[in-house]
Amino acid sequence: MSELRQDLATKRWVIIATERAKRPDQFKRGDEKPPVAPLDPKCPFCPGNEQLTPEVILRYPQEGPWEIRVIPNKFPALEGSGEVVVHEPHGLSTTNGYGSHEVIIESPKHNLSFATLPPQARRKMLDVFEVRLRSLRNLPHVKFISIFRNHGRAAGTSLIHPHCQLIATPIVPTHIRQEVEESRRHYDDHVTCVYCEMMDIESNVGKRVILDSPHFLALAPFASRTPFEMMVLPKRHCSDFGEMTMSEANDLADMLGTVLGKMHDRLNDPDYNLMLHTAPLRDIPQDCYHWHVEILPKLTIAAGFELGTGIYINSSKPEECAAFLRG
Amino acid sequence: MSELRQDLATKRWVIIATERAKRPDQFKRGDEKPPVAPLDPKCPFCPGNEQLTPEVILRYPQEGPWEIRVIPNKFPALEGSGEVVVHEPHGLSTTNGYGSHEVIIESPKHNLSFATLPPQARRKMLDVFEVRLRSLRNLPHVKFISIFRNHGRAAGTSLIHPHCQLIATPIVPTHIRQEVEESRRHYDDHVTCVYCEMMDIESNVGKRVILDSPHFLALAPFASRTPFEMMVLPKRHCSDFGEMTMSEANDLADMLGTVLGKMHDRLNDPDYNLMLHTAPLRDIPQDCYHWHVEILPKLTIAAGFELGTGIYINSSKPEECAAFLRG
Repeated sequence: MSELRQDLATKRWVIIATERAKRPDQFKRGDEKPPVAPLDPKCPFCPGNEQLTPEVILRYPQEGPWEIRVIPNKFPALEGSGEVVVHEPHGLSTTNGYGSHEVIIESPKHNLSFATLPPQARRKMLDVFEVRLRSLRNLPHVKFISIFRNHGRAAGTSLIHPHCQLIATPIVPTHIRQEVEESRRHYDDHVTCVYCEMMDIESNVGKRVILDSPHFLALAPFASRTPFEMMVLPKRHCSDFGEMTMSEANDLADMLGTVLGKMHDRLNDPDYNLMLHTAPLRDIPQDCYHWHVEILPKLTIAAGFELGTGIYINSSKPEECAAFLRG
Repeated sequence: MSELRQDLATKRWVIIATERAKRPDQFKRGDEKPPVAPLDPKCPFCPGNEQLTPEVILRYPQEGPWEIRVIPNKFPALEGSGEVVVHEPHGLSTTNGYGSHEVIIESPKHNLSFATLPPQARRKMLDVFEVRLRSLRNLPHVKFISIFRNHGRAAGTSLIHPHCQLIATPIVPTHIRQEVEESRRHYDDHVTCVYCEMMDIESNVGKRVILDSPHFLALAPFASRTPFEMMVLPKRHCSDFGEMTMSEANDLADMLGTVLGKMHDRLNDPDYNLMLHTAPLRDIPQDCYHWHVEILPKLTIAAGFELGTGIYINSSKPEECAAFLRG
């Protein structure tokens, strides 16, 4: 008998389908990825090919060989700035695609990934995120900043050189607005943050905790949408990624290295999407919200049922996935 | 400069990304699918292998060689019946996975698909949908019935033998609830159905109409999430697929054959998901809602930005896709 589970924060239901259940180790990638050299002369993100990408926005360090580079996306989904005015030709709403679309190259080495970067490079990446958020957040047309990482072709990346992306949008995206609304509703009902409550519950229950560090908790969510979904939450209630302290950032860099490393080692480097969820900018106060990181391995395909209903069918138990990763 | 567009009915924003725009013919599948025989002795859905699947629920015709078979899914996501009681161990909501999960085999021929079925077989499929909906809709634990079709491996199917699926759920799925809520809000604001209004606008504008039949309109939605997204709407306002008339069903069978056939021929048989959106069962009256069919070709991958924000980046113009399909 399958089980329906509801996510405490988003109210999203999932089906934990035991009839088609697999053991955690059955999700291990079967094929070997071909070996990759540390430098690819044809890769636009490799050192020596800087002229193939648009002019650099930020580099670290400022002098000498670069370790991290931030550049505009060559084919930006959004760009430019101006007043965001919605036009309604024939009653259909449309607006200029103002915003930013940046690529954050994580390393000069072509064959690394966020999981295999040196620890200080991961730490520096978090600084770079914060600097770019700070630089973009006060632009009047920017209402939200999405930072994400697509790892592997099944996760939608076309270039394997390790990189994250940032897209600044002129509207607050639906998913974020819904999360903020649900967290506000929960606060109004219970006078608690729903994400803080989730961490309390999961710390007590224990079996879905993947890693517990001084400042962060990594969970296999109770209502995981996919096998090995992960959620990394700061223990200190805060709506805004940009308000992380130095010691929290040190801890998060280690935490992400460890949990992505576990996934890399135990599942043989699966493709995944990583998404930073942080509060919309300059809206009504978002104190009810709680920023976090979501990681969705691409081990299954969202098909007609998922696309039509929004209910995911998950053929694994989050408790078993967490145990396998802790293991 | 990209453009943001909002879907009139769901209020979902998409980015029509012109910087990465492709011509419609660039989405044509490059590889040839290997030829498929009309009978595969190893396929559990092929004639002669009926003993490999659970006991038949419905077959057509009732005697002689079958043309359509409805069977329980061998690995059901939901099954059984009983009182739907939400338990809250540690404050986390869970309930038994009561419901149904059926497979509707469209033809004894292994190498056909919905687009290449004989017209009378497509028409009969719609009858079978209606019969199964009628049979399940009054079960007290069933709150919604999802009918969908996954075509091709990228769309999540594991068996290529032509089939649809039906899942009856003990809750109203989020996507459907949101669509119903938005259509109610629109009705309360404007005293019109938002889907009827969309059809009025699109009929007048014309350039996103793919096919216009006596009873249905096939559109490339203004805010298409993917290249070649299609929406097929009944012209008569009605919330419930099950209330379609005979002449509407005849027309829909032809309409789906034509639009899926155009996609098959002009894009070289792309993988796709097809979803029936119809009103929840036995809820407060859903007169504001308008049932329809959505078709999402799997020509791109929803990556970190789409998963994190809910905003799709579409690298094609719906107007150009509609023109390409019209021919």
